[in-house]
Amino acid sequence: MMIDPAEDAKAPATAPHPSAPPRPGDAAGADVLATGIDPFVVAATRLAIEAGDMEAVRARIEPLHAADLADLIQDLDRADRRAVIPLIAKDLLPAVLAELDETVRDEVIEALGVSETAAAVADMEIDDALHVISELDEEDQQRVLDAIPEPDRVLIEQGLSYPDFSAGRLMQREMVAVPTFWTVGDTIDHLRWTAEESPDTLPTLFYDLYVVDPGHRPVGAIALSRLLTARRAVALTDLMQTELKRIPTDMAQRDVAFLFRQRDLTSAPVVDDGGRLVGVITIDDVVDVIEEEHEDEVMHLGGVRYDDLYSATFDTARSRFTWLLVNLVTAIIASLVIGLFDATIEQMVALAVLMPIVASMGGNAGTQSLTVAVRALATKELTAANAGRVVGKELLVGSINGVLFAVVTGAVTWVWFGDGALAAIIGMAMVINLIVAGLSGAVIPIVLDRLNIDPAIASSVFLTTVTDVVGFFAFLGLATWLLL
Amino acid sequence: MMIDPAEDAKAPATAPHPSAPPRPGDAAGADVLATGIDPFVVAATRLAIEAGDMEAVRARIEPLHAADLADLIQDLDRADRRAVIPLIAKDLLPAVLAELDETVRDEVIEALGVSETAAAVADMEIDDALHVISELDEEDQQRVLDAIPEPDRVLIEQGLSYPDFSAGRLMQREMVAVPTFWTVGDTIDHLRWTAEESPDTLPTLFYDLYVVDPGHRPVGAIALSRLLTARRAVALTDLMQTELKRIPTDMAQRDVAFLFRQRDLTSAPVVDDGGRLVGVITIDDVVDVIEEEHEDEVMHLGGVRYDDLYSATFDTARSRFTWLLVNLVTAIIASLVIGLFDATIEQMVALAVLMPIVASMGGNAGTQSLTVAVRALATKELTAANAGRVVGKELLVGSINGVLFAVVTGAVTWVWFGDGALAAIIGMAMVINLIVAGLSGAVIPIVLDRLNIDPAIASSVFLTTVTDVVGFFAFLGLATWLLL
Repeated sequence: MMIDPAEDAKAPATAPHPSAPPRPGDAAGADVLATGIDPFVVAATRLAIEAGDMEAVRARIEPLHAADLADLIQDLDRADRRAVIPLIAKDLLPAVLAELDETVRDEVIEALGVSETAAAVADMEIDDALHVISELDEEDQQRVLDAIPEPDRVLIEQGLSYPDFSAGRLMQREMVAVPTFWTVGDTIDHLRWTAEESPDTLPTLFYDLYVVDPGHRPVGAIALSRLLTARRAVALTDLMQTELKRIPTDMAQRDVAFLFRQRDLTSAPVVDDGGRLVGVITIDDVVDVIEEEHEDEVMHLGGVRYDDLYSATFDTARSRFTWLLVNLVTAIIASLVIGLFDATIEQMVALAVLMPIVASMGGNAGTQSLTVAVRALATKELTAANAGRVVGKELLVGSINGVLFAVVTGAVTWVWFGDGALAAIIGMAMVINLIVAGLSGAVIPIVLDRLNIDPAIASSVFLTTVTDVVGFFAFLGLATWLLL
Repeated sequence: MMIDPAEDAKAPATAPHPSAPPRPGDAAGADVLATGIDPFVVAATRLAIEAGDMEAVRARIEPLHAADLADLIQDLDRADRRAVIPLIAKDLLPAVLAELDETVRDEVIEALGVSETAAAVADMEIDDALHVISELDEEDQQRVLDAIPEPDRVLIEQGLSYPDFSAGRLMQREMVAVPTFWTVGDTIDHLRWTAEESPDTLPTLFYDLYVVDPGHRPVGAIALSRLLTARRAVALTDLMQTELKRIPTDMAQRDVAFLFRQRDLTSAPVVDDGGRLVGVITIDDVVDVIEEEHEDEVMHLGGVRYDDLYSATFDTARSRFTWLLVNLVTAIIASLVIGLFDATIEQMVALAVLMPIVASMGGNAGTQSLTVAVRALATKELTAANAGRVVGKELLVGSINGVLFAVVTGAVTWVWFGDGALAAIIGMAMVINLIVAGLSGAVIPIVLDRLNIDPAIASSVFLTTVTDVVGFFAFLGLATWLLL
């Protein structure tokens, strides 16, 4: 197994990238386009499809990187997509599938059929394959799995046995694990030998290697840059970083992402219940998780459950309907409060004109406070240790801005309606609603989080209910009590 | 310069991590805590500070990782922070400073004084130092810079000459660049030699090395795992990946982040105007950018300009005031619309009771559409190529849900007020407002983006104005026209 380190290499051991002529950057950055697919390419492709000129379409898509090709497919409409799919080169298909948005991917897979999909999935890295397969519906999942040849299928099935969104789903199974008694030289020789004799067992890219004890439990990690800068005789145990974060297979992927950020990790070992090394999670997988979590947070705060830029119009309408229905209930509750004071409004219609101002300012101030709290909960900056302080601060901020806007709104009202009493009443209602808004904006997400409900999803509807009800009740109630 | 690769190593060449006894994971994952700082530690530290028992405080903070120590400092209030700061070990200070939130960092720096801050900054990696210094105000910046010794100061000043939020600010200056005529063996020998003779010129961690032409222009990149799996005699030009994304120093960091995600990069060369390699950006720097962009997006959508979990109450109140003032103008415009119909409301107070429902549903439906559009603009999925399709879809979704909610709200109104005509009018107003909401939710962010205004900041105030004005106008206008 050991190889003379000074051996003659008759042929390059690994030369997977054809050494194309170097492209010196004469115009610096000329090869950098950070804006996604060129809209001109999309338009030209669309025209070629409409003209039925499939050779022109092929010429357009041939030079594209998989990520740009995925963008192109997403930008086309359904009919045009179906025309392009058969033209995608077989060797690009795995990368394109991995890049696609879920909705469009389902469409492409349907167009490809089971056997072509299975062939593409079998060519992916196990973690990508797992990701694509896990998003299929159960029937397709089984059919694609059945069409994948033996060794890969078993690995994918093992992966599927871990819970959704767990470290087990996220990890790569290929890794480099070496025994504690090896030296740097042993390790380099082993890597060269493996690359020649059984390259499939090596990950395509890796950044660290793991030192394991005889029970295959990780005891240390060595960054490749550290290995490369040490002499051959150095023992691995003298090089290795022993402060390892061992990630259990069932850790939630959002916790994995938190750990990577908190500790600035680039990779971490995943261990089973017995502490044995079963996989590795690398920072590039974590970037995808961060993106997904981010997407969810923004969408949930905006009242959208699923990313729907590419989903069918009717599916989008249906998924948004539910949230709007919940909000309708909120709005009706607010209207019921107004209804309590219909006699007062009848006597003084200015109240109807002004009341939305109080409710709307409460809603906006509450949303500010809520946004900060939801963000801080997501980044685990808002914890039991400082919750009291954060709530207290929001109460104060609400009071300060409440008083300021009481003055501003009171002045506007006085000028508009020439009624000092009305001005005083809207001012008082403003103070009350902005304090309540600041308080609820912080308390509602914290309480939901304690109850294990995603605060990004549910907070805003509770908040709006509170600020509408309190806003209308305070303003109309004070008016009824003091003016009539 | 060449070293016999099979040399005897008398002492380990690099052994920076003391080889502590391995900790086999007997309880798997027992050393993984993905929840930030333990609230108990915060509480205990706080109690010890109050009791004035500084030895107990020291004992609490000593075992903490820099990231946890930063969390602890953030969780304390101002007075307690000042008590803890002097106890932070000098060698931890650089890492703690780099981890802290900007507001708290300013406080810590103030407490430390210029010379201690400068010493800590001088111990950071250049990119971290640059980040910390760039966030200081100008006077402190100059004083800290003056106190940093020569070679580091020049590098930091060079870094500060690049625009804020540019690739030049983000990049590391330490990198490994090798000539085109070297082999794998030459490279490994060179790395070992450099690690012994001038370790400061090597980055602490690196994942790729760059092959440069005689003009120091990058012509290829080689992942370390590829270098390690190749035989010594293999030429670098046979190993290198020539499809490089060369990043110009003035590229915006958000575009850098987009490029990394789009191309699944782990590192990329940064080049100056002449195409010469001047630095390297790695994925871990990009993760921080992704986090910052995310933070901004969520905060801006929620009407918050700065992260303010740690800023002083009065600063928070002031920063939120501006946004609320803008919204007050919106609310007053909506009230002016209602004011147009005061005679109608006087005759039929049910209109005042019901009108917030129409406006609120429009606001919520518009926010859904706006959230999807802002997200898609941020990920560059919404482009000139598909803007028309997205707007058309939102129009359709608005129409579908408009009709559905017209029926639901109409039915509720009929039951509540027993008035079929009123039910028909609220239904019509609902259809109009939900169509306008869907349309504006998509169009407003697209237009702002074209005008180079951050759609996450400004979209929602325009949207609310539109949905309030149209909601009140459609409902009250139809009622005036049809009922009176």
